[in-house]
Amino acid sequence: MARINEHYRKLAAGYLFPEIGRRVKAFTDAHPEAGIIRLGIGDVTLPLVPAVVEAARRAIEEMGTAAGVHGYAPDQGYDFLLDAIREGDYAPRGVTLARDELFVSDGSKQDSANLQELFGQDCRLLVTDPVYPVYVDSNVMAGRTGPADERGYYGGIRYLAATEANGFVPDPPAEPADVAYLCSPNNPTGAVAGREQLARWVAWARAHDAVLVFDAAYDAYIQDPRLPRSIYEIEGARACAIEMRSYSKRAGFTGLRCAYTVVPHECTGTTAEGTRVPLRELWARRQSTKFNGVPYPVQRAAEAVHAPEGRKQTAEQVAYYMENARRLREGLGGAGFRVFGGEHAPYVWMRVPAGRTSWGFFDELLARAHVVGTPGAGFGPSGEGYLRLSAFNDRARVDEAIARIRRAFGDSPGDSAIPGEV
Amino acid sequence: MARINEHYRKLAAGYLFPEIGRRVKAFTDAHPEAGIIRLGIGDVTLPLVPAVVEAARRAIEEMGTAAGVHGYAPDQGYDFLLDAIREGDYAPRGVTLARDELFVSDGSKQDSANLQELFGQDCRLLVTDPVYPVYVDSNVMAGRTGPADERGYYGGIRYLAATEANGFVPDPPAEPADVAYLCSPNNPTGAVAGREQLARWVAWARAHDAVLVFDAAYDAYIQDPRLPRSIYEIEGARACAIEMRSYSKRAGFTGLRCAYTVVPHECTGTTAEGTRVPLRELWARRQSTKFNGVPYPVQRAAEAVHAPEGRKQTAEQVAYYMENARRLREGLGGAGFRVFGGEHAPYVWMRVPAGRTSWGFFDELLARAHVVGTPGAGFGPSGEGYLRLSAFNDRARVDEAIARIRRAFGDSPGDSAIPGEV
Repeated sequence: MARINEHYRKLAAGYLFPEIGRRVKAFTDAHPEAGIIRLGIGDVTLPLVPAVVEAARRAIEEMGTAAGVHGYAPDQGYDFLLDAIREGDYAPRGVTLARDELFVSDGSKQDSANLQELFGQDCRLLVTDPVYPVYVDSNVMAGRTGPADERGYYGGIRYLAATEANGFVPDPPAEPADVAYLCSPNNPTGAVAGREQLARWVAWARAHDAVLVFDAAYDAYIQDPRLPRSIYEIEGARACAIEMRSYSKRAGFTGLRCAYTVVPHECTGTTAEGTRVPLRELWARRQSTKFNGVPYPVQRAAEAVHAPEGRKQTAEQVAYYMENARRLREGLGGAGFRVFGGEHAPYVWMRVPAGRTSWGFFDELLARAHVVGTPGAGFGPSGEGYLRLSAFNDRARVDEAIARIRRAFGDSPGDSAIPGEV
Repeated sequence: MARINEHYRKLAAGYLFPEIGRRVKAFTDAHPEAGIIRLGIGDVTLPLVPAVVEAARRAIEEMGTAAGVHGYAPDQGYDFLLDAIREGDYAPRGVTLARDELFVSDGSKQDSANLQELFGQDCRLLVTDPVYPVYVDSNVMAGRTGPADERGYYGGIRYLAATEANGFVPDPPAEPADVAYLCSPNNPTGAVAGREQLARWVAWARAHDAVLVFDAAYDAYIQDPRLPRSIYEIEGARACAIEMRSYSKRAGFTGLRCAYTVVPHECTGTTAEGTRVPLRELWARRQSTKFNGVPYPVQRAAEAVHAPEGRKQTAEQVAYYMENARRLREGLGGAGFRVFGGEHAPYVWMRVPAGRTSWGFFDELLARAHVVGTPGAGFGPSGEGYLRLSAFNDRARVDEAIARIRRAFGDSPGDSAIPGEV
């Protein structure tokens, strides 16, 4: 008799976005005339830029010629892309990476879900709360967390609340942990960590021999050049940090799928006998056994993002979305909502009006304004009382969404109660 | 202190193909003048067919237009591809599948590595031996197997030897197991299971409430229309079998990445309390949490494989490779080698000459004939004494490889000793 992996039963309901999809579908089935505006899931709405289309088109045509056959890609990615990343993303920030420290993949979601496989079953996990659900769910499925309590906290995970009081960037705790997930610019709060804050995290990781899993999928949205874009800009990070980057949001690749993960040679875990093992070796083994590379045309498309035309064209798209974020922030802030984020990230984190929970407000917003957000509680208990609004949409629709929200919820929405807040 | 996943240390050396890559590189670095012919890794050598290139090109150009934006793909794949699969691969064989039983993915390697996540830690595993290494390694990494013994067998896995005596298609054992991996046409032996043999496996799975993971990645190479292509052609299989198919070998997609897995609604596992849970629900949750879909242009390219032009063009490529297989089989067989497979599969399974191990012959073949094969022992202990030769190459190179092998090893190679053989 095939017994199932019982840990799957500990997962809260569905994965967040399919659940939102179900609610939106139920509403639109009942109200087909409603012109829904989706500011929920963080999916791009602008077409691929010409430089990317051209590179992918050329690569696919090349694959149709005898001289241009491309079969299995090299395990960690084509050298042309590895070098474009090193020279485009890291050299300008003073960071030197070896080719074999880079692993091209089909998404940061996958990488952040799979990295936990490298660690022991009993390692102590730390996340900030609210949190991108994949960090938690992948560990629940692997059996590291035990069941969730009535608030949604898993016993095997330490949660650091990201609150208005700490600017949504918690400092490291006094206690140790083994693996800590950090995301900056943050999904969902839109907050960004400064150099000193990251330095405190690196110092904490070094002190406790912990590994930082640093998710920089939104780094392209950082507006202030003085803010760090990579954890490796922080002294000592190579010994303790794994970093993920993605082309999804910086270049509209959600439908093309390309990302990469950096595992420096110095970053190690420990065996039961205390021997240090480079995590790079484990990740290389994991990827060569369970992954088979990113399509050649997609790697060529990603390479084009780093070339001058691609850089310019994708920067214009980022600027477009950031103007949307500014309008959301200012338009809703001006109407009395308390809004956060949206300055170095494509997400605005909005306090929901008085008397609502975040799922309650999600449903109400859908019903009364025909606008889809993402309920903060879907990202963890400390997300209760907030809604995430995504800047990924058409300008006119963003403006219309702002107007609808203002019409539906008046100019003095008040603030919801935040659990534990005085 | 971050403890590593100790199970990784139980893996035998490197994953097979990187290990071969290292040996070939060492040889070519030392002998840059040697014109190596690679019949090792099963990677396609013909360019993508025009219908596939055209579909992918159109899709990528579409993504560059405002009306053609495609972000995240639907979790299980686009309906156009799901329907093309149902109508192209299953309806002609009398098999009806629901859309939501199909999961489009970026490869059968990934799917076969990931499916084990759905099952409990203590489930009893069964594989045929020799075996595609990913079935075993993914379970080793997950901690289900314990360490390997001196022959390479893991204690937590039951191995059924595929031998000359059973035509390389073992019958199910008398004993139960919980999850059994079957691959037909087989990688590496090239053997194919007949209808009655598959029926015995389905009956065995039903009797023991086991799940069959049926890997049909090479189904396009089956030449005899009476042979089953899908496990679902066997009565009762929907209740016990998961099936994987791939575009890699049937349409040259190793560098494009597309495959799919079928999990029928009736196929269940059991909780500790004995409740039946559809594995489809678990796989859907796994994929929505840890995967993010196949690129839109790749799904359009896969759709084109099912259209008339694509079918015709890819069938010609399959026929080309199968003619290579015939030449390998007859050319080497005629020279006194004992060869198997290659009739309904792109692999020829060759007994290595007397006095050699399979890795020893691999090295000797590389050194003396400058031909790369895959040592049978890399696929498991029962692969000792054999070498896999892949038909994926240029015709002239295949002919040249045959000539070189004949020159290097004479016309009476004799047979190696097979452990346990009388």
